[in-house]
Amino acid sequence: MNQSECHTIAFVGLGNMGGPMVENLLKAGFSVNVFDLVPELAKQLESVGAKAFSTLEAAVADVDAVMTMLPAGEHVRTVYLGDDHGAKGLLNLVQPGTFLIDSSTIEPDSAKLVAKEAAAKGLSFVDAPVSGGVAGAKAGTLTFIVGGTDQAFETSKQILAHMGKNIFHAGQAGDGQMAKICNNLLLGIIMSGTCEALSLGIDNGLNPEVLSNIMQQSSGRNWVLELYNPCPGVMESAPASNHYAPGFMSKLMSKDLGLGMQAAANSQSTVPMGALARNLYAFHNNNGNAELDFSSLFEYFRSERER
Amino acid sequence: MNQSECHTIAFVGLGNMGGPMVENLLKAGFSVNVFDLVPELAKQLESVGAKAFSTLEAAVADVDAVMTMLPAGEHVRTVYLGDDHGAKGLLNLVQPGTFLIDSSTIEPDSAKLVAKEAAAKGLSFVDAPVSGGVAGAKAGTLTFIVGGTDQAFETSKQILAHMGKNIFHAGQAGDGQMAKICNNLLLGIIMSGTCEALSLGIDNGLNPEVLSNIMQQSSGRNWVLELYNPCPGVMESAPASNHYAPGFMSKLMSKDLGLGMQAAANSQSTVPMGALARNLYAFHNNNGNAELDFSSLFEYFRSERER
Amino acid sequence: MNQSECHTIAFVGLGNMGGPMVENLLKAGFSVNVFDLVPELAKQLESVGAKAFSTLEAAVADVDAVMTMLPAGEHVRTVYLGDDHGAKGLLNLVQPGTFLIDSSTIEPDSAKLVAKEAAAKGLSFVDAPVSGGVAGAKAGTLTFIVGGTDQAFETSKQILAHMGKNIFHAGQAGDGQMAKICNNLLLGIIMSGTCEALSLGIDNGLNPEVLSNIMQQSSGRNWVLELYNPCPGVMESAPASNHYAPGFMSKLMSKDLGLGMQAAANSQSTVPMGALARNLYAFHNNNGNAELDFSSLFEYFRSERER
Amino acid sequence: MNQSECHTIAFVGLGNMGGPMVENLLKAGFSVNVFDLVPELAKQLESVGAKAFSTLEAAVADVDAVMTMLPAGEHVRTVYLGDDHGAKGLLNLVQPGTFLIDSSTIEPDSAKLVAKEAAAKGLSFVDAPVSGGVAGAKAGTLTFIVGGTDQAFETSKQILAHMGKNIFHAGQAGDGQMAKICNNLLLGIIMSGTCEALSLGIDNGLNPEVLSNIMQQSSGRNWVLELYNPCPGVMESAPASNHYAPGFMSKLMSKDLGLGMQAAANSQSTVPMGALARNLYAFHNNNGNAELDFSSLFEYFRSERER
Repeated sequence: MNQSECHTIAFVGLGNMGGPMVENLLKAGFSVNVFDLVPELAKQLESVGAKAFSTLEAAVADVDAVMTMLPAGEHVRTVYLGDDHGAKGLLNLVQPGTFLIDSSTIEPDSAKLVAKEAAAKGLSFVDAPVSGGVAGAKAGTLTFIVGGTDQAFETSKQILAHMGKNIFHAGQAGDGQMAKICNNLLLGIIMSGTCEALSLGIDNGLNPEVLSNIMQQSSGRNWVLELYNPCPGVMESAPASNHYAPGFMSKLMSKDLGLGMQAAANSQSTVPMGALARNLYAFHNNNGNAELDFSSLFEYFRSERER
Repeated sequence: MNQSECHTIAFVGLGNMGGPMVENLLKAGFSVNVFDLVPELAKQLESVGAKAFSTLEAAVADVDAVMTMLPAGEHVRTVYLGDDHGAKGLLNLVQPGTFLIDSSTIEPDSAKLVAKEAAAKGLSFVDAPVSGGVAGAKAGTLTFIVGGTDQAFETSKQILAHMGKNIFHAGQAGDGQMAKICNNLLLGIIMSGTCEALSLGIDNGLNPEVLSNIMQQSSGRNWVLELYNPCPGVMESAPASNHYAPGFMSKLMSKDLGLGMQAAANSQSTVPMGALARNLYAFHNNNGNAELDFSSLFEYFRSERER
Repeated sequence: MNQSECHTIAFVGLGNMGGPMVENLLKAGFSVNVFDLVPELAKQLESVGAKAFSTLEAAVADVDAVMTMLPAGEHVRTVYLGDDHGAKGLLNLVQPGTFLIDSSTIEPDSAKLVAKEAAAKGLSFVDAPVSGGVAGAKAGTLTFIVGGTDQAFETSKQILAHMGKNIFHAGQAGDGQMAKICNNLLLGIIMSGTCEALSLGIDNGLNPEVLSNIMQQSSGRNWVLELYNPCPGVMESAPASNHYAPGFMSKLMSKDLGLGMQAAANSQSTVPMGALARNLYAFHNNNGNAELDFSSLFEYFRSERER
Repeated sequence: MNQSECHTIAFVGLGNMGGPMVENLLKAGFSVNVFDLVPELAKQLESVGAKAFSTLEAAVADVDAVMTMLPAGEHVRTVYLGDDHGAKGLLNLVQPGTFLIDSSTIEPDSAKLVAKEAAAKGLSFVDAPVSGGVAGAKAGTLTFIVGGTDQAFETSKQILAHMGKNIFHAGQAGDGQMAKICNNLLLGIIMSGTCEALSLGIDNGLNPEVLSNIMQQSSGRNWVLELYNPCPGVMESAPASNHYAPGFMSKLMSKDLGLGMQAAANSQSTVPMGALARNLYAFHNNNGNAELDFSSLFEYFRSERER
């Protein structure tokens, strides 16, 4: 596919994220085929102009590009490579020259496997995991972190630019996933640390808003303090001030920290801070908070003290 | 002391930080009396216009304000309150109306004790710990985090503004120390987390500069990535690119994390991330790295791998 | 005091532990003077044969040995060394030759200070912290870990043997405290680890009793599995099977882990596992469990899962 | 296979453990067929009476039982289930009635998968991971932790009893693996904690042998202090007193802690202590110590201090 020649896109996986992304592609003038294992999800998008298909094969048969947005690596491997029961995967269903983008958040090894198999068939593939959540998907302000060749990255930007604001090139195939894992590992650590620092201050009589302002203008400065303060009442726009309505669910932070642990196990890397953050989130989630925003970890630090 | 009436300041504690702070006060037109237990340190400042004294009593006898910059809480208590062997403290040596500022980094309880004793004698005191290091002291761009009454805070600004850029009011006496402790606890966590995330990325084939850029523009953003990247070569101006010459020494980060642990023990707060960071720094420092910049923790994560 | 010449003992500090210890001394034939800041506690022991005194001075004036059992280091320093308000300490109140034993659990530095001041007055002192709890105090089966000279250790055994079963000589003054701190740090870690291993097994379908038996006969063997299984129902005699009635209260484990953290800060030692255990206990205690037995940490690992 | 009818066993996987296990089976009077991907390993065992085969198929064709001892789950799945390239697995090669034992240490899910597939073909399978190391394999004193039905457990004992001393029944298929994972997680935590407690004591002037004795007779008691003291010189028979010659290699403890992390991720369990121990071992191993005995973690705590 030449960069200027992408007119028709098949979009596979139409959950909370996929749906709004399809709408933005439609607004940008693409023709979009949609498919999901739950047929209703495809049907719903017909009203905004998508073409719903009832089989993967039909949806991707004659398109310039395919974009996938799936829950986990096993789904990505099945959709691209097929399964043990004879179902064909994307790589065997698309026309030569079809450009492939996977925006799921999965383990890098699965992304590398799909990329390798795609290359063996002469197909271009990038992994392009996303951050920014449902709000970003709707607003078209997502961040994409792309892994693939320079040329594939340039091609992917033609499509991704209609759904996101920042599009980064992390490196080769799988590196998009890896960079996202590193970022979210760091985010999980910073959120835990920010909750802890604020909580220590409150326990010792400091005003959390005053303390937040001081740290944000000092060397403790970070994205959480800037945009996502976890202490209720400090920042009106943050989930903390809205009963921790997500935002980015606590269980998804657990998932991403789990991907970090798995990557570290494979490379025998040391990740003590991330491992601890993963366990703090596990304690928190197991107490019935998995679907709250991930900044609700603040409550884990406050526990009985506030009651 | 009325805010406009401060002409003469006594400065006690003339180490790496105190010396340049005195110079900035002299440049601003104050008359400065200096004293240190090491007389040479006072002598050296005569060439730039300070008046050196050989006793604390003489140095503080007839000044508008006293500023102290000492290594630890025990020194601050002795200098202000006197000792068991009959030495008088500042509080018994100064004229009524002398304004008192302590810029040491110490445990909040010591700051509160001094403030209470000062108030009992009708003297105004603020704790105003500092960040920004020797470079900030020389450039007059330090950050001061002040604890004390509103009026005392306003008075202190008249003096501190000549040595620093950001002057925060954290709350009552001792709260300046507490806010600094919280900030540096968070900084220690973020530095550890940033080293860990970069190291995990490198182990998995990512380019640290590319990864740093992506995280700095995403939700992993923080002061370390912005100004102080711990990976050699990524940021020319950072200590990491200059053999980890400090900057802020690793042993000082240990000291500050230790103050955080002590505060948490007193308030029975939970500080799992800070406690782990404190121990990572202890491992690192015990291996002969205590005097390197605190970003050298990165090397602890790389260990044999690079050799 | 020659070993065979100890007839009269003053006992200071008559709480849950001190009371039963006095009773065992009385049973062994000693004459016992008792004193506590709460006079009722002394009075109550008159019925079993003790002589109650209303001042420290009177209680210790004419005895062969003094034994103290106090909550924390500050109390020990005050009782032995006096206070700022002119109250005299034990060291100035006892007859020459009086033998001194402190069985409180305190920081080693306080024990060393008291030992040094005692030696300066020609008095023999040992620190002899205790384990075994209230049950052990009543049964006379306590463990004492003694710090002091060889001769002082031998002398102390003449008295301690009537209250305890195991009497260890850890080293010089203060080393009794230090050895107890090390033991309880390890115990806190092992309890946390045992809770975690059992919980992981249960989450994966194992029977906790079967798993406990296997581990106790394998390399996971430890005192907790042997005598103090934290999973309700596995061991009838354990606090876990009695609604976590202490036993050894969770807040006391926190106190001892805190002493460990303080010792590690002083010696710049690395204690990552103990620091984490200290924080797990802090989370658990802050949720209203401070007065339960310390094996109730098991419930912290189970959280919502069981409900 | 009836319990008394087992005469011929095929043994697959002839490494450091498998070799001596075969010898013990031969000594017990079994006829043993041996196979390994490295043919020399099979050949070497001919001198002690085994029959070497050059294919898996031939080795297992006509035996009463098969025992496997392989490095990881992927090998076990391949050997039992076959591979993508058409190689047949054990389950398709053995006679009906052949009894199957896998003594590898692998993730429980792989054990459950093999057990399920075996059952579908009417074959009995147990997972029976082992502890006790090479020394235990040679001496015939291994510990086996068995997962499978009651009947299969009884059958397995007829064979395992000739190689081991303790044979535990953990539960159903896969539970043998899970129980071993829990035990070794706890062992890794206890080893880390024991190193830490001893190191803290040494830093504060205690004699490690005295401290070890006190803790072993107190509530810090555990298998490491009893049999495997990590401080050189304290226990003559321990690897620590023999330059940390394994024993149980540090990298194998890492592997087992990794299996624990994976199990915890699957069951969303909280394993903060094990996660920290896993990372301490990763730091230690990455510094060139992976092949030392796992008690060499003690040196990680001592670092520069001893030099």
